[in-house]
Amino acid sequence: MENIEFTLFKYARVVDHYIYERLTGTPEELYRAALHLIKAGGKRLRPTIALLTAKMLGGIEAESRAIPLAAAIEISHNFTLVHDDIMDKDEYRRGVPTVHKVWGEPWAILAGDLLHAFAYRFIVFSTDHGMSKGDAHEAMKVLTVAGIKVSRGQAYDLMFENRWDVTPVDYLDMVYHKTGAMMEASAKLGAIAARASNEVIELMGQFGSLLGVAFQVRDDYLGVFGDPKKTGKPIYNDIRRGKKTLLVLLTMSMASEKEKELLMRVLDPNVQKKEEEVLKVVDLMKLYGADVEAMKIASAYAERAKEILREIRDIVDPAARDVLMLMADYSVTREK
Amino acid sequence: MENIEFTLFKYARVVDHYIYERLTGTPEELYRAALHLIKAGGKRLRPTIALLTAKMLGGIEAESRAIPLAAAIEISHNFTLVHDDIMDKDEYRRGVPTVHKVWGEPWAILAGDLLHAFAYRFIVFSTDHGMSKGDAHEAMKVLTVAGIKVSRGQAYDLMFENRWDVTPVDYLDMVYHKTGAMMEASAKLGAIAARASNEVIELMGQFGSLLGVAFQVRDDYLGVFGDPKKTGKPIYNDIRRGKKTLLVLLTMSMASEKEKELLMRVLDPNVQKKEEEVLKVVDLMKLYGADVEAMKIASAYAERAKEILREIRDIVDPAARDVLMLMADYSVTREK
Repeated sequence: MENIEFTLFKYARVVDHYIYERLTGTPEELYRAALHLIKAGGKRLRPTIALLTAKMLGGIEAESRAIPLAAAIEISHNFTLVHDDIMDKDEYRRGVPTVHKVWGEPWAILAGDLLHAFAYRFIVFSTDHGMSKGDAHEAMKVLTVAGIKVSRGQAYDLMFENRWDVTPVDYLDMVYHKTGAMMEASAKLGAIAARASNEVIELMGQFGSLLGVAFQVRDDYLGVFGDPKKTGKPIYNDIRRGKKTLLVLLTMSMASEKEKELLMRVLDPNVQKKEEEVLKVVDLMKLYGADVEAMKIASAYAERAKEILREIRDIVDPAARDVLMLMADYSVTREK
Repeated sequence: MENIEFTLFKYARVVDHYIYERLTGTPEELYRAALHLIKAGGKRLRPTIALLTAKMLGGIEAESRAIPLAAAIEISHNFTLVHDDIMDKDEYRRGVPTVHKVWGEPWAILAGDLLHAFAYRFIVFSTDHGMSKGDAHEAMKVLTVAGIKVSRGQAYDLMFENRWDVTPVDYLDMVYHKTGAMMEASAKLGAIAARASNEVIELMGQFGSLLGVAFQVRDDYLGVFGDPKKTGKPIYNDIRRGKKTLLVLLTMSMASEKEKELLMRVLDPNVQKKEEEVLKVVDLMKLYGADVEAMKIASAYAERAKEILREIRDIVDPAARDVLMLMADYSVTREK
């Protein structure tokens, strides 16, 4: 585990440098708002996947070509966080107040839009980093598709708050769009920078999306059973907001009629609830083993991601593959 | 004038068809929200500039290549409208309730983000319409630069609401970013589709940005002296919001100390004001001839835009140039 965190740290420095050098302009306050969450931390998981994939398939030259793409995916991810925090009325992330809490909603909307535009700008810049215009075009295709998928995922996430007919399959489809699609894009961008075949690009896309779903299920798990000091996010927020996480859906499928009533009341986003009621929901999750079951499902996704890595031929750098393997494990064992 | 409106109508059909065919997906409600303002009307000025520029410089083949770019600029423009309406708390546009009024803020943010992503998606699609990957790359550069400039313009527009040291030059710079940059991009995209030289692309960019500033000054004028039945927007909104339009700045520069006090009170966005006070501000604008002066400035921009058109060599379709000339006139004479 130590290893993965060091890897993430190392890649974070490269990507952050690229971002801080280029994400500048006026009014300065707008750029401060746009960089707020990036400066607050974050794991840089998505750019690290892009860079490791590039290195695995094409060595250090490919890794170097992938830097603007990795930076693009990180700021695209941050754009979605800034906007999602407004939509979800979340007040803290990465241990700091969210952008709209500090600057207000209009500036947060604008800061997100600026990050969104810069993500595409960075892909344009990639031709100054050794990418051909054809490959940059492929990269643009990948990032636009991911952007559209993320919108879809976020829309279903919002819709599910007011629906009770959500199945675990609906949830996993939503999570694939909301989180998986961006990880899919990360791995694909790395493969494009390595000039991999279409087949390998597609396989790496699958790796990324599987890892993304595993990561998100773990994220939901940590939102209830994690340590808020480590995660940087307030605990039980998803329950209060009525998020239909896998934990909730699995518990619902096993609960008695009376317990279902409790769940539906506590998970109604429009109802004020007492802390003890929220804790009762947590108890039910444990009672029915939803915590264990959800992590089993997450682990199955992570294992499938690793299988795909084993299927890939033409590996230039096996050490990079080993690190990607560890990242799949990390996605379901991480504490923050 | 009849002529220009017919031209806009004709080009609107082509662009709308392209947009409606491709801007589809699930959840349907999200796509309905994203298409709401587009379906409500709008002049399609930006795509028309792109298509006419392409035709003028490269004939009908260039015009055909420019269709995805024209569609991209229109939905990019609509994305900014959806988000700006949230930021400005505007409730009506194009005669219909704004997206956040109908679907709420979270969906409006998301619908805007979806349009933003699709704008870039359409540029990617342009290679299926005869654009080379190199030209698509140039187009992407133009659209990302415009997106970043628009964010800057909107940020200054928001900042100016709480500032009284804004000069007419500050205003014109803000308007260049907020409105001019997207028109600049429209004309450049048309020139790129026509495979024009860099020099001609730059000149057309100047034409677009001059026309854009002229258009925006006229827009501000119509917001006070126009007919809301024609414009589709409530009258005097800019005054109530404390927008530092050229009308306000010119009036301020000529007003007495007592009148300045009135202006500053009525134009404070945080203060409730009476309708009669708003009307007093309108009277002052007329008293000091700010209406006439602002339109003189707008006309000077439109005239300079026309001069640039006259400077351009290698015109393939002079009739298209004549229509662009008329569009420059239209930008400052339009009633809606």
